[in-house]
Amino acid sequence: MRTLTVELGERSYPIYIGGGIRQQKDLFDQAIHGKQVMIVTNETIAPLYLDAMVSMLAESYQVATCILPDGEAFKTLETYGQIMTSLLEAKHNRTTTIIALGGGVVGDMAGYAAATYQRGVAFIQVPTTLLSQVDSSVGGKTGVNHPLGKNMIGAFYQPQAVIIDTHTLSTLPVKELSAGMAEVIKYGLICDAAFFDWLEQEIDALMALDNDKISDAIYRSCVAKADVVAQDEREGGIRAILNLGHTFGHAIETHMGYGNWLHGEAVAAGCVLAVDLSWRMGNLTEQDVSRSVALFKAANLPVLPPAEMTLEHFKALMVLDKKVLDGSLRLVLLDSLGDAIVTSDFPMSDFDECIIDALEASEKIPS
Amino acid sequence: MRTLTVELGERSYPIYIGGGIRQQKDLFDQAIHGKQVMIVTNETIAPLYLDAMVSMLAESYQVATCILPDGEAFKTLETYGQIMTSLLEAKHNRTTTIIALGGGVVGDMAGYAAATYQRGVAFIQVPTTLLSQVDSSVGGKTGVNHPLGKNMIGAFYQPQAVIIDTHTLSTLPVKELSAGMAEVIKYGLICDAAFFDWLEQEIDALMALDNDKISDAIYRSCVAKADVVAQDEREGGIRAILNLGHTFGHAIETHMGYGNWLHGEAVAAGCVLAVDLSWRMGNLTEQDVSRSVALFKAANLPVLPPAEMTLEHFKALMVLDKKVLDGSLRLVLLDSLGDAIVTSDFPMSDFDECIIDALEASEKIPS
Repeated sequence: MRTLTVELGERSYPIYIGGGIRQQKDLFDQAIHGKQVMIVTNETIAPLYLDAMVSMLAESYQVATCILPDGEAFKTLETYGQIMTSLLEAKHNRTTTIIALGGGVVGDMAGYAAATYQRGVAFIQVPTTLLSQVDSSVGGKTGVNHPLGKNMIGAFYQPQAVIIDTHTLSTLPVKELSAGMAEVIKYGLICDAAFFDWLEQEIDALMALDNDKISDAIYRSCVAKADVVAQDEREGGIRAILNLGHTFGHAIETHMGYGNWLHGEAVAAGCVLAVDLSWRMGNLTEQDVSRSVALFKAANLPVLPPAEMTLEHFKALMVLDKKVLDGSLRLVLLDSLGDAIVTSDFPMSDFDECIIDALEASEKIPS
Repeated sequence: MRTLTVELGERSYPIYIGGGIRQQKDLFDQAIHGKQVMIVTNETIAPLYLDAMVSMLAESYQVATCILPDGEAFKTLETYGQIMTSLLEAKHNRTTTIIALGGGVVGDMAGYAAATYQRGVAFIQVPTTLLSQVDSSVGGKTGVNHPLGKNMIGAFYQPQAVIIDTHTLSTLPVKELSAGMAEVIKYGLICDAAFFDWLEQEIDALMALDNDKISDAIYRSCVAKADVVAQDEREGGIRAILNLGHTFGHAIETHMGYGNWLHGEAVAAGCVLAVDLSWRMGNLTEQDVSRSVALFKAANLPVLPPAEMTLEHFKALMVLDKKVLDGSLRLVLLDSLGDAIVTSDFPMSDFDECIIDALEASEKIPS
């Protein structure tokens, strides 16, 4: 088992990574301080892992469960309200601990519920998808979507612990494994060129779920994210580099309707747009671009936006993004492979051409 | 104008108290750091004060407004969702500042919206009721009710500034002035015996809205609350003393249905129950009890619970209170007049008799 600590002063917490560790009760015992536990999961994950977790924890705690519908479409204030109702019906008080058992949607909503139930209760993440293991399990972002924008409602809230069981990846659809790999590759692009090189060599073993290598990839991704988050917990500055590809990606997700493109797929296409724009600005070589495209492709990820979108769609949807400061569009771009910058200082003509060329290329692909 | 600072490290903020200061633009300018402002208010307050505030701030900022229905019955997740929709429709970003113009319900909901819009934006309180001026403007509690319990959903979130204009009390219904006075008297009871003495002398002038005296009362109440909150921002310990009368009071409010008894009225009756129980335990003299009852009465407040309730109602409703730790009922009681304690160490027979006697006395009052 690998362990790392996210250093956030009094809000520091451990991340455990290993095969089968969701059954290690001592990891939970260390993080639970009351008598009540509420496991929040969804209809897909519940049949796989819920009973075993309830049995294990019921030895020591009063365990209740809340099973949500599965999917980004249900990441809403209404579903969040359901978690609150479950907690109140089970008469859980301020000493309860909420366990998020599932992917990013479950983690975001259960975390937001933990942040706001009786103004804050304890929270443990047990992420079961690669995306949530390398992304949402570090950084304390919790929340829900609004019909007018993704992740517009939420709070920063840190868990007591994150328990990453790599065995849960064996039940993950391959499409979602790819989506998670988009974020893993992103860490290489923004802050770790050596990790990017390693990923190029190991991508086939990773896609085949070699347990040691996937644990390494998760560990290095979490370390990368934890380093950035520790420097900027509330996303005032450098933390924004974690959003490489996300401003473009959110536009794709919003236009296509939540859930039609997986988040990681939209991030992959968005990262390629950001890499392409960085190349147009003279920051990257053509080889950097082709290596990036090849790596995302090797992970079975899209490298172009959907052909049905237009430049105007991108512009309209990117203005609502949280990274827009008083109207000027700020983007995460690369200064070199392995080094990201946040800037609003890019030629708008490059931005336009980057998207127009990508959309044209996308139209030429037989659908 | 009186000023005090709530000392909370990097989350410290000023409270300004004075007649007419809602029209002092410089107080707002100091606290607003972006270009966008969203004023959240309700249908009762909007006709009185909204236009003037919009005109004043529109000189420097892009001002949007959100007018909520008035009343505790609307302090819900749905109404909170409306604020989020208003913010998104007006395309407000992370640099926006939310101004709560109204009483405690507006402040709690606007504050919760500020705490959670895009994971946290700036927030200014302009409380227009005595209750919100002396209570909810200090301490950072924000949130909404759930059908199964009051204030069960929310966050701790501090404003950039609180601007208390005592002139707004002139438009307040007298019943609500009394309700606010319940909290003022509470501060005397829990931590400031000299203030309690002063209130006994000045209660008639205060009820007549003598501007200097009401400013003093608000200032001393805010100082008392700020002292307690500074010691315990997240309500882990001593802060609970601020809830004198509230555990009883919440039971009354919940049983009667939100809004039928004003919060302050329920707190007054609840404080008298807590004072009575403290006397039964030998902590107070009979004179302490009669002085307390007389002061609440002089502020036109109820000193007995509603006759239609039973001991069983109280017990059932008090178990759901946030101050119940793993099942044992903890109450705020007085150790002496001006000194509160939090304890679960009281004879249950005293608790029962205290409520039964009060309910019997209440039944004898012609309704």
